[in-house]
Amino acid sequence: MMPGGGRCAACKYLRRRCPSDCIFSHYFPANDPQRFVCVHKIYGASNVAKMLQQLPANLQAEAADSLSFEARHRVEDPVYGCVGIIHRLHEQIHNAETQLARTQAQLSVFISTRID
Amino acid sequence: MMPGGGRCAACKYLRRRCPSDCIFSHYFPANDPQRFVCVHKIYGASNVAKMLQQLPANLQAEAADSLSFEARHRVEDPVYGCVGIIHRLHEQIHNAETQLARTQAQLSVFISTRID
Repeated sequence: MMPGGGRCAACKYLRRRCPSDCIFSHYFPANDPQRFVCVHKIYGASNVAKMLQQLPANLQAEAADSLSFEARHRVEDPVYGCVGIIHRLHEQIHNAETQLARTQAQLSVFISTRID
Repeated sequence: MMPGGGRCAACKYLRRRCPSDCIFSHYFPANDPQRFVCVHKIYGASNVAKMLQQLPANLQAEAADSLSFEARHRVEDPVYGCVGIIHRLHEQIHNAETQLARTQAQLSVFISTRID
């Protein structure tokens, strides 16, 4: 059951009563139905419930966020999902490090010229 | 059915016959049972089959790899999964860019000193 009383996004989507101890209600509010639609499509409701229930209560919100993030990206990019983001970030790191190495090399040249 | 004839990791795990058109057989070989165990645990076999079947054949191997990667990281880190990696890469980019900006500033000082 949601803090305000109504059903959460999961129970609305699954067309069921939202129990007072609903595992979804804190993490899938009725005002963001798409968040539940994505995790349901990718993991299935029972897998999401199981993954959340296996965690201590103080870590469930972070887990629901990361599951929702991964599910949304898998829906948007069914081939690479989050792994596509990871590839792009690796490229960005490679570019920044290449540029850093180049700048450090230029700096070394200036320093050595000055010393000479 | 695997190219060599035997059952794939999925069909072995699910204790079923491996049909000639098994959607798992090309991507979940018998010699890497853990790969299937992870995707089964996180997504469920039928969700994995559905996600692969919805893609053109030439993209299924990449999708199976990225699903396996995400599932393995979710098993290893049930709170953050792949999102933990993304956070760490963002930090790494931030550090590289900070260092780059500092080195570029030092270089500018040297260049301006030389011109003066």
